[in-house]
Parts: sequence; C-alpha cells; structure tokens
Amino acid sequence: MTVSRETGPLFLGIDLGGTNVRAGVVDDSGSPLSRVEQRTHASRGPESGIERIIATARAAVAAANLDMEHIAAVGLATPGTMDIPGGMLLHPHNLPGWDNVPIRDIVAENLGRRTVLQNDANAAAYGEYWAGGGRDVHSLAFWTLGTGIGSGLIVADMIITGEHSHGSECGHIIIEMDNGRPCATGQNGTLEAYSSATALVLRCWEALEAGRQTVLREWLAGDEELTPLMIASAAESGDELADELIMETARCLGVGTVSLMHTIDPAMVLIGGAMTFGRHGTKLGRRFLERVRQEVRVRAFPVPAARTLIDYATLGGDAGFIGAAGCARRELRLESLRA
Amino acid sequence: MTVSRETGPLFLGIDLGGTNVRAGVVDDSGSPLSRVEQRTHASRGPESGIERIIATARAAVAAANLDMEHIAAVGLATPGTMDIPGGMLLHPHNLPGWDNVPIRDIVAENLGRRTVLQNDANAAAYGEYWAGGGRDVHSLAFWTLGTGIGSGLIVADMIITGEHSHGSECGHIIIEMDNGRPCATGQNGTLEAYSSATALVLRCWEALEAGRQTVLREWLAGDEELTPLMIASAAESGDELADELIMETARCLGVGTVSLMHTIDPAMVLIGGAMTFGRHGTKLGRRFLERVRQEVRVRAFPVPAARTLIDYATLGGDAGFIGAAGCARRELRLESLRA
Repeated sequence: MTVSRETGPLFLGIDLGGTNVRAGVVDDSGSPLSRVEQRTHASRGPESGIERIIATARAAVAAANLDMEHIAAVGLATPGTMDIPGGMLLHPHNLPGWDNVPIRDIVAENLGRRTVLQNDANAAAYGEYWAGGGRDVHSLAFWTLGTGIGSGLIVADMIITGEHSHGSECGHIIIEMDNGRPCATGQNGTLEAYSSATALVLRCWEALEAGRQTVLREWLAGDEELTPLMIASAAESGDELADELIMETARCLGVGTVSLMHTIDPAMVLIGGAMTFGRHGTKLGRRFLERVRQEVRVRAFPVPAARTLIDYATLGGDAGFIGAAGCARRELRLESLRA
Repeated sequence: MTVSRETGPLFLGIDLGGTNVRAGVVDDSGSPLSRVEQRTHASRGPESGIERIIATARAAVAAANLDMEHIAAVGLATPGTMDIPGGMLLHPHNLPGWDNVPIRDIVAENLGRRTVLQNDANAAAYGEYWAGGGRDVHSLAFWTLGTGIGSGLIVADMIITGEHSHGSECGHIIIEMDNGRPCATGQNGTLEAYSSATALVLRCWEALEAGRQTVLREWLAGDEELTPLMIASAAESGDELADELIMETARCLGVGTVSLMHTIDPAMVLIGGAMTFGRHGTKLGRRFLERVRQEVRVRAFPVPAARTLIDYATLGGDAGFIGAAGCARRELRLESLRA
C-alpha cells in the first residue's frame, strides 16, 4: 500500500453519474484533498465516457499535486443495474448504451491502480458513514432524494449490497400495496412514487389540473418548467398547496423510514440528495425534517422511535466520491485483515 | 471449549415461548441429539418460569446421555422486547410480568455454562441458515407466520439484530400506509395486519358478518372457535371464501417479501411458523407458496425476482432451539477468531 508520509494512504474516489463525473483524492480520514467535475456525455456511449472518467480521475490526482503512484487504490461509484463483485455495469438506466461494460477492470487498467466498484447510492451512504453525518455511529440508513430515491444501508462497516447487487434499493419498497401511485419503474405504490422529485412534480400537476389555488399557476404562465425548487420557493412564500405537497413528501418518507427501522434498526437515518429543501438552513428544510421525524415517532416502536437519530446528510454532492474512496480503503483493510 | 470425541463441540439450545419451553443438545453440524419440551407456565412469573427453563435444559442434556460439562455453551432464544447484547428481557409481550429480567446471566449461573441470548425469530432464522433450508446460502430472510409475524435476517453469518435489538421485526413493515387494516400493536397497515393468523381469522369473521357464503358458517354452529386450521380445512374442501382469504394472506406476504428483497436482497426467503398450511405436503400448501412467488415475480426487480429462492423452512418447531445453539456456537467461533 502506498503511504504518504503525512496522511497515511491516499485514495481516489470517482462518482459517475449520467450527467457529471466527479472525482477527488481522499485521505485516510475521509477528507478530500481535491475535487474535479466534468460532464459525462453519457449518451455518446461508454468508449468516450470512459475517456472522460479517466481524464477526470487524472485531473483530480493532479489537482492534489500528486501522481497516480501516490494512490493506494481507486473507488468507482456508478448507477445500477450492475454486478458489484463482478465489476460490471449490466443495464444502467442512467447510462444508456453502457450495457455489460466491465468498467472496474477498464478503469483499473487505464489508471494502473487497484479499483473497487460500488453502487452510487451505497457509496454515498458509505461516505456519510465513514466521514460525514454518520461518522460516530455503528449502523446507518441513508436516503438520497432526487429524480428517484436511492438508498444505502451500512451495518457494522458492511455495505448491504445484497446477493444480486440489488440490496439497499429501498426507494422501491412498497408503502401502498393496493391502488398505490404509479412509479417510473412500472410498479405501483413504491416509496419512490410518493417521495421523489418526480412524484412531487407529478402531484403538483395533478393539483393544478384539479383547479387548486396556488401561486404556481401564475409562475408557470411564462412557460416555465415546474421543478421541485419552484415548489419549494412557493412553499417558502406561504403557498398552501406547495407546502402541503412537500409535507406529504416528508410524511411518506417517514413511512418508508419506519419500514427500514423494522428491518435493519439502524442507529441513524440520514437524508441527502438534490431534493432536501435547504436542509437546516431554511425554515422549510427544518419543517420537512420535523415532519419525517413526526411520522417515525407515531409509527415506529417506542424504543427505536425515541433513539434513532434522523437528520440531514452532511457531505452534499461529495458523498459519492468520498464514499467510493472509502470503499477502496475498506477493501484494502479487509484484505490486510484476511492476510 | 469442551469437545466430544466424536462430534466436535456440543451446544445446548433453549427456545422459550409464552406457552412452551423447548431445549435440545445440538452437535457441531446442527443436528439435534435430544429434544425436550415442557409447559412454560409463563403467567406464574419469572421465578417459577426460570425453574422450568433450567429443568428443561437439564432434562435435554440428560436425554442426550450427557452431563452439563459436555456442553460448550448455551444459546437461549426468547421473545422480545429485549436487550440482546445486555442479556435482558425488557417488556416481553408474551411473558407478562417478566419485565427487566437479566435472563442470560441467570441461566448462565444456574447451568454453570456460558450463555448467549437471542431473539426467538432471529434464532429460528439462524437455525434455518445454519442447519435447515438455508444451509447452502450466504444470506437469508425468514418469515415465521403465527399469531403475529416474526422474521429474521441473516447476511454473511451476521444476524441483523439492530441497534436497539429491534432489527428483523419485518412483520411490522408498512404495506398499506393509508386506510390500512389495524394491527394488534396499535399500528395500521403493517404486514402483520394482513398475513398473520390473527388477520386471517379477523378477515374471516368480517366475511361471515358480511353474509358471505361458506361452509365455515355450518362448522361454527356448534360453538367452535374459528382457527386458521379450520379455514385451511374449508379451503381444502373447496370452500371459495376460505381459499380466497388464504390466497390473500399469501399475496400480502409476497408484498412484504418484495420490500425485504429491495432492502437486503437475500439469496433465499424461507417461510416457517405454525401457519404454513401443510407446506409442500398439501395442495393448499403448494398453492400458498406459489401465490407468494407469483406476487414476487410481478413486483420485484427482474434479476432478484428470477433468482431469489422462496420456499418453506425445513426445521419446523425445532428451528428455535437449534438456532439458539447455533448462536452460542457462532459466538464462541467469533471469539476464537478475535483471539
């Protein structure tokens, strides 16, 4: 293992998304030493996309004033579907055309470093567990709210990746079995059909079509696109409908959280992702979190309801590459334990 | 560790229930060498109950023609609520009056053997994982259908006990968030409110009161108590209502199973407990299982839907004490790994 004299081993984390690829060097305590982001241009296909990944990775190492040989190992986080132990992308919905790509070995070969593959939401969860809001707990459930709902579950440093690389896909748990709302996956009644950005926007359109009074009708007159941010702004300005829709999003997330608590009973639940309504920084962010907590208090068993910490994640968009680096670090440590 | 010359170390498993306590000596491969069952008389309180536990444990050792000194360690499975690492019963619903009993240390002291405490459903899951239907897989979700719904989750030999000893309580996950059926716990819309024996009987009463035609109306005329077994007999005799109710029980269990698959993505899901409708041995048992599988095929992601094994558990009522013994064995093995 390559060890920097000052900081212990260094790791390179790469977080590949359909829109952007972000990479950074991370030290042994989980602090990023650099951070580089570029467009993925995923739709141009895997060949040019992998070039972007490699360029971003090299740029991140250079930005930390390091050479690749200073990197002990590389962690790569990607969207699914995938075969995590096999190092393969299978049919990644957000990377159209990247089917059956042995991405782990391609990246390893190009960078000349041992590379570890992980699912993106799992990596972000591991980042929060290692170096973010969950750094002091033994087990963590993590939600990432965006277009869909990702999640990651960590128990005693084990990432619940599952037997078919489909573990911790908790956005798809069923919260309304009959007559549930439709989800983009084709399933009905999943958490994602209630608490994702997609669901929020869809419900808002339904309310508009039903004639509900809201300032959003005016805001949309200029051919604007309806976004969660716009709904949040409306809620912050006192719009009743917008507030109701966002609180309903929180309520349903609370229901899903209760099911997770009955399953892995984590020490902490963290909420991250693009759709977090200003986190603690705004009144709406605080009310959203309080609404999740309230649903948990009402529905969970008394002991976990009282003791499980529920809060916002702290690493923001860096959670993915920091966690990917952490996964690489974890793998090397497990190997040295086994040896 | 005490090692029998022929079989490796031997373990004593004890499965404490509200009605009966069952104990047996189990060898290092998970085979029971003896099995003794007595009434718990739980309502007489913990003092006399613990006497029953100790007497049953000693009888199980004697029945295997052994002395207590041949036993490497004791595993004790009990209902919750409990503090598993602390070795305490807290407020066990099925053992009224047994609040805050340090049962692990009491049993250890009385038997003079190292004792390990585990939740009863978790122990049964571990029994199936170690020596039953799950012996060949790496991860397992286990349902035990009875008055309520217990469950146990095992991933890579780790029992998901949770941060507050409330892990693997998957009978309480929410499958119908709004207007869900009431559960004995006071919560609505939980899996237990749909797929437990209690739920089956309650739904049958509702159908009777609603005037549905069924042979059960006749059978109940003689002041009989309505039981799941009676409903199963009616279904087997071709009664439409009874069949419909049992298939609905299976459908909802399938929904809960899908949520577990999205969470831990196990290699296998096993169904055990008192209410398993004859398992493979009857047409109804086979149809019940097929109905669970069908719901999973429709609702889960394609890869886990195709690959996750769903079947009946194989150890029956012995799963608890065998698994408890397995938990004791596991603890000693972890200790020797750490040493």
